[in-house]
Amino acid sequence: MSSFDSTTDPSLRAFFDIPADSDFSIQNLPFGIFRPSQRHAPRVGVAIGHFVLDLYVLETSGFFDGPALREQDVFGDRWLNPFMDLGKAARVEARKKISELLSGKDERLKNDSDLQKRALIPMDQVVLELPVQIGDYTDFYSSREHATNVGTMFRGKDNALQPNWLHLPVGYHGRSSSVVVSGTPLHRPMGQTKADDAENPVFGPSRLVDFELEMGFFVSGGNELGSRLSMQEAEDNIFGLVLVNDWSARDIQKWEYVPLGPFLAKNFGTSISPWVITTEALEPFRTKGPVQTDPEVLDYLKPARPDQTYDLRLEVAIQGEEMEKPHTVCVSNFKYLYWSMAQQLVHHAATGCNMRTGDMLASGTISGPTEDSYGSMLELSWRGAKSVPLSNGEERKFLKDGDTVIMRGWGQGDGYRVGFGECAGKLLPVKS
Amino acid sequence: MSSFDSTTDPSLRAFFDIPADSDFSIQNLPFGIFRPSQRHAPRVGVAIGHFVLDLYVLETSGFFDGPALREQDVFGDRWLNPFMDLGKAARVEARKKISELLSGKDERLKNDSDLQKRALIPMDQVVLELPVQIGDYTDFYSSREHATNVGTMFRGKDNALQPNWLHLPVGYHGRSSSVVVSGTPLHRPMGQTKADDAENPVFGPSRLVDFELEMGFFVSGGNELGSRLSMQEAEDNIFGLVLVNDWSARDIQKWEYVPLGPFLAKNFGTSISPWVITTEALEPFRTKGPVQTDPEVLDYLKPARPDQTYDLRLEVAIQGEEMEKPHTVCVSNFKYLYWSMAQQLVHHAATGCNMRTGDMLASGTISGPTEDSYGSMLELSWRGAKSVPLSNGEERKFLKDGDTVIMRGWGQGDGYRVGFGECAGKLLPVKS
Repeated sequence: MSSFDSTTDPSLRAFFDIPADSDFSIQNLPFGIFRPSQRHAPRVGVAIGHFVLDLYVLETSGFFDGPALREQDVFGDRWLNPFMDLGKAARVEARKKISELLSGKDERLKNDSDLQKRALIPMDQVVLELPVQIGDYTDFYSSREHATNVGTMFRGKDNALQPNWLHLPVGYHGRSSSVVVSGTPLHRPMGQTKADDAENPVFGPSRLVDFELEMGFFVSGGNELGSRLSMQEAEDNIFGLVLVNDWSARDIQKWEYVPLGPFLAKNFGTSISPWVITTEALEPFRTKGPVQTDPEVLDYLKPARPDQTYDLRLEVAIQGEEMEKPHTVCVSNFKYLYWSMAQQLVHHAATGCNMRTGDMLASGTISGPTEDSYGSMLELSWRGAKSVPLSNGEERKFLKDGDTVIMRGWGQGDGYRVGFGECAGKLLPVKS
Repeated sequence: MSSFDSTTDPSLRAFFDIPADSDFSIQNLPFGIFRPSQRHAPRVGVAIGHFVLDLYVLETSGFFDGPALREQDVFGDRWLNPFMDLGKAARVEARKKISELLSGKDERLKNDSDLQKRALIPMDQVVLELPVQIGDYTDFYSSREHATNVGTMFRGKDNALQPNWLHLPVGYHGRSSSVVVSGTPLHRPMGQTKADDAENPVFGPSRLVDFELEMGFFVSGGNELGSRLSMQEAEDNIFGLVLVNDWSARDIQKWEYVPLGPFLAKNFGTSISPWVITTEALEPFRTKGPVQTDPEVLDYLKPARPDQTYDLRLEVAIQGEEMEKPHTVCVSNFKYLYWSMAQQLVHHAATGCNMRTGDMLASGTISGPTEDSYGSMLELSWRGAKSVPLSNGEERKFLKDGDTVIMRGWGQGDGYRVGFGECAGKLLPVKS
């Protein structure tokens, strides 16, 4: 653990019961946007055990009286952006106060059953919304294992990585309008595809719909157009992380992507988990990333601290319409990423491109070293060369209409978890 | 002319003098966002001759009393988006009322010198702002001549066009945060580049900064996630057009763009002209685009009308710091584009990608068939193989610090012009 504050103390417990395997321990305190019920307006909340803590209720009751938050009015908003825009000081201050209230160190919530009724809403009653108004969304390609797998399939083992891959975090601009919150179903896309042996392309439903296991982070702060960010500034400009499913249509991608990159193959939907875990909550899971000395990274990308990444277990499960429960097809880990989030952010801003509060940067598929850690059906089925067995005897090469893809992820502490909840999405048939 | 309404009648004249070569004739009526002076808040205006007509003044005076606008409150906004979101009916209604007031058919402005003083502000006094809050920005690659030139340079004449190019409008997602209004200077970007004979890349100032002559359009309306647009719906969802300079760093692009496309090479700035010309004002300049029968386009991209494009003259000039006036280096035309705006929009939404009011779609570099019609220095200098002479004896292969790039464009009517004004930007040195 490279840094330590009272909110991540492993011995801390809430004044009410939270199961040890809950994603939403008192050490976690992830921020999201929710409605207490369908008829309520959205506002900012924190997931805690089986409850959502309504920060708008706490704000209007005057609990946030520290220097960074007392003049502010951010928790009744429909987006996290105004809160994110206040920067790290406000985030740390909010976490501290929430932690004190939930632990009972500050007894005002613990001793007030009426306030508890208004501020702690059972999670099964609330409606979760997209948490952040995303300005620009950028997707990277930062897993060496994933890039190597894809490169090997398409160009052979000896030319798997492109010459630039180990020198810079390769990325491309994505589509922000179609980023949706977990639980939102998506339709199988139509598109142009061309069979290898066909003379001309056809327009029809994609036959090769895939998931991609990724993680994304949100910028808070950023840089002015024409200015750049240092690696330390980048660390301070990362608000928090979510799980990301970068749905992909492989047959559309194959036909369209030369020479300007993925476009329609990726823009029909990107799912994210509803709760944003702050970098403060992830501090206990800091760990070293892959060695970056062969080749040596250029100076502007040299890490500000050695423990650049996080040890977070990641899982993907598929549940078909005939299946009683999800079947796990992939177990990976955030720490496998070659390029860190700070490196992605610094590189993105290196030209003077202005990064803004609410921008989302995703990692690219996070594959690990073993076959059961590959983060896409493209890799798990090795481009359709083999089938992936499911628990009820079915098998898959790519996704089938009616399949729900469920991603989960967490850091495992000593007796507690810091988890993301679910990033789930069902694939519906083409919309007629 | 395929359709006709009273606002584009060539014989129409304003009640005050407008030079015949003004971009802002009474037939034009382009919408923009301006401040009457630095101390005023931004609002919606229309360029007319040497003046800006303040629509907020007209709105608060009750002039917009038609069915689409009378209940609305859109012209005091800092963005055009609320007005754009009202769709074609509101646009047509606003144009009709503005045309009547400026022609004197409705005499209330012509006969009220006090109102004129409040509503007609000399253009040299106003501050022009970015007109649209851009959600997502997408850049296409729709000029056959440009794609052929670039393909020839990098792959030779026989393989110039990629196999997909004639079947679909190739495009990629761009960066919306760095879209700036004409007049905003940009800094030469830093970035990673690698010389052909070098073993490793270096990080430093780009040496090959270029412009790209493009045009962009804004979406009004759009489609729900999972739904698609027909070619006719696409026509109705195009609000209007602007000039676009898609600044590019060729050396950064070369090193980074395989396999996911242009990224940092394009995200340090994109300039647009401040006035958005509606499709209604461009109707008189409708013309047929290139023949699309070899190969035949797929059904979903078949035009709703034969005159898919516009006859608009486009020019690019460069003015170095030592030059007294700009020197024109390129004369092109919007009609050279192979893929139309409607085709770009339909293709973009074909997967069910939701298009939103305020999205900007740009054309890609618009090069014509002759060497003096090429829309980038990359093509004009043929990748640096030859120099482009300027009027004061200087020459350029790519842009120099201090160069201002000025784009202009207009449709030439009988005795009047429908023009975009300028899209100008100065290239400053790297920001230290």
